[in-house]
Amino acid sequence: MNKDSTISITTLAGGATVPPGFRSGGVACGVRGPGELDLGLLLSEGPCSAAAVFTRNAFKGAPLGVTREAVEAGGLRAVVVNSGNANAATGPRGVEDAYAMQGAAGEALGVEAGRVAVASTGVIGEHLPMDKIRAGIKDAAGTLSEYGASFAEAILTTDTRTKEAAAEVEVGGRTVTVGGTAKGSGMIHPNMGTMLAFLTTDAAVEPGCLQETLGLAADRSFNRVTVDGDTSPSDMALLLANGAAGNEPLTAGSPDLPAFAGAVEAVTQTLAKEIARDGEGATRLVEVMVEGAEGEEVAAALAKSVVGSSLVKAAVFGEDANWGRVLTAMGYAGVPFDPDGLELWFGPVKVFEGAPVPHEAAEANAALASGEVRITARLGAGDASATAWGCDLSYEYVKINGSYRT
Amino acid sequence: MNKDSTISITTLAGGATVPPGFRSGGVACGVRGPGELDLGLLLSEGPCSAAAVFTRNAFKGAPLGVTREAVEAGGLRAVVVNSGNANAATGPRGVEDAYAMQGAAGEALGVEAGRVAVASTGVIGEHLPMDKIRAGIKDAAGTLSEYGASFAEAILTTDTRTKEAAAEVEVGGRTVTVGGTAKGSGMIHPNMGTMLAFLTTDAAVEPGCLQETLGLAADRSFNRVTVDGDTSPSDMALLLANGAAGNEPLTAGSPDLPAFAGAVEAVTQTLAKEIARDGEGATRLVEVMVEGAEGEEVAAALAKSVVGSSLVKAAVFGEDANWGRVLTAMGYAGVPFDPDGLELWFGPVKVFEGAPVPHEAAEANAALASGEVRITARLGAGDASATAWGCDLSYEYVKINGSYRT
Repeated sequence: MNKDSTISITTLAGGATVPPGFRSGGVACGVRGPGELDLGLLLSEGPCSAAAVFTRNAFKGAPLGVTREAVEAGGLRAVVVNSGNANAATGPRGVEDAYAMQGAAGEALGVEAGRVAVASTGVIGEHLPMDKIRAGIKDAAGTLSEYGASFAEAILTTDTRTKEAAAEVEVGGRTVTVGGTAKGSGMIHPNMGTMLAFLTTDAAVEPGCLQETLGLAADRSFNRVTVDGDTSPSDMALLLANGAAGNEPLTAGSPDLPAFAGAVEAVTQTLAKEIARDGEGATRLVEVMVEGAEGEEVAAALAKSVVGSSLVKAAVFGEDANWGRVLTAMGYAGVPFDPDGLELWFGPVKVFEGAPVPHEAAEANAALASGEVRITARLGAGDASATAWGCDLSYEYVKINGSYRT
Repeated sequence: MNKDSTISITTLAGGATVPPGFRSGGVACGVRGPGELDLGLLLSEGPCSAAAVFTRNAFKGAPLGVTREAVEAGGLRAVVVNSGNANAATGPRGVEDAYAMQGAAGEALGVEAGRVAVASTGVIGEHLPMDKIRAGIKDAAGTLSEYGASFAEAILTTDTRTKEAAAEVEVGGRTVTVGGTAKGSGMIHPNMGTMLAFLTTDAAVEPGCLQETLGLAADRSFNRVTVDGDTSPSDMALLLANGAAGNEPLTAGSPDLPAFAGAVEAVTQTLAKEIARDGEGATRLVEVMVEGAEGEEVAAALAKSVVGSSLVKAAVFGEDANWGRVLTAMGYAGVPFDPDGLELWFGPVKVFEGAPVPHEAAEANAALASGEVRITARLGAGDASATAWGCDLSYEYVKINGSYRT
């Protein structure tokens, strides 16, 4: 629906603090490593309508239950995040620690504890160093500003850069903004693999409508990114709407909902691509577009299977246009498709059309040599399409993950 | 059922030519690389009852349809295999080429073309060089012997060593033997990823019973191996039974069927472990055992998810006992399990029991430093168990697959 040509979405610089009424900050408290920012706070001036999506991993980090409660209670005011330790697989003490983080943030920010969402990312299976966390929260409360850089940095783990996006659009005669700050590098997979995204807006939106908007945007962005096929127990996307724009609150039937949803999707897709581009050890972004499918779900399953294939990823790293691996990955995606009707391109080079298409291998290889690689498959079975994003598989990925804790 | 203590299975040296009545050979015909064996033949003196399992990839190599026909027609006599080229994604000409291979093998061996199974493994999307294949088949027919070494070598691609296993067991008062020769290195995944296995026996077995025996053995062996999560379009396991042992033909109700099935499973599990150990770039075999599950399917899904995790594989390579990644992989296996009741071991070191168990990290890391790594999970939910096999993820995997064709 965001493709409607009457909707004009403008991209803005910055992230979660672009919409009016949000401030954030971050400090180094010693969880992640000497001098590395690892404790972030995001505060809304007023209570927000909130929506959240969580990892589908059956095994969930302790903060997720605490945050789900806060979102369901309504009137969310703040988010506290630490990196360097996921507070996952930490048993009952982990749950206590998550509540203690929530309480400490509420106290430091002067808001009710129950209105604070909690997130943690990092190593699994170690207890949080609560003294450092408490001290960090106090310090971070003194750094809040409308510039989000320290918050964006404090939520990172193996990421090599911060990830922010923002957009504005007309809703009910008002200009509303949507901002987002995210992290994610390894353990990224469709279904919210180690990814944190904190989205904000000054639009007024009913909670149910906000949840639906976030769910769809996440399906079309974060859930179409894969770095290594692992799905983390810690990840979440939150969307806070403070209503400061003064528009009539959006509901499921609002004529301007598509405009707002389009802006949210624009922000989440930009963040998703940044996450893929910054995959552990990645040297290039891989974008796989599947067109001509019977339905969007089929197209998405095929696209995700291709970006998730270790063999495709290694071939892209090696600049080897081994398109047979793309067909292979589509074949095990678990959805029906007819290889005889398939057309396949590496960049602008058609390599397959029911049978191999003669082409210069050097040209197809060249399509893999840029920083952004595009693989396109056309099925001829319908009108639906979907895009998925990933990265190549490099020596560096192995190095990072063979020695993450040491 | 093969765990029955009254069944005594004896392991033998050798592979598919251990059972009487089978001969094989192999030559270099120039498909794979200068001087590398790449064309193999396996011949049975008499007609065989045959069973087959094929890749579940929706996109299948041309030889698979030809082989399925031959298996269904009954009375199989021979197998022709080439490595270096998978004859997959080759359109109608690929199917013609597969039939031409079948015809040439039949002619060279003096058997009906329809009684020859065909298999190809290697690069996808290139047409077979049929002149070389035809010449190779003629040459290979002159190399047949009861020693299988050249056949075992001719079916390899990126494998670093041949894979053979054999066993004998008493069936109806007769000693019957089961032999197998296999290949598989990259693109190995549960569901028959790039794996070829040619199994033989001198037992007399009804085709339906043979199919069921092979299906179950494959589920408990080949389908529990993962190297890189990719499932190849080319792979198959064949089981040929020539009846030379002279036993009363085994059927579904035969009291000695468990003994025969146990021997088949012993051979396929040995081959499966060899395939995992020889995974592309692998430095160690990883064996994941899940115990105390409600059912074997749940246990198998959890075990396969762990051996398939890139993060677990990289951690094993780095000798880093990052057990949180094991829990994470179990969490996204898509089957229900209760993390609170979970116990987890790295080798002999217990690391988790509903919460982290204090232990010396050096001891847990040491459990990853041997050539065979054992990870055990106990669920406390029932009596079922399952084992899956894989390997670590190394720099070498990336190197091999970044430059496979160049």
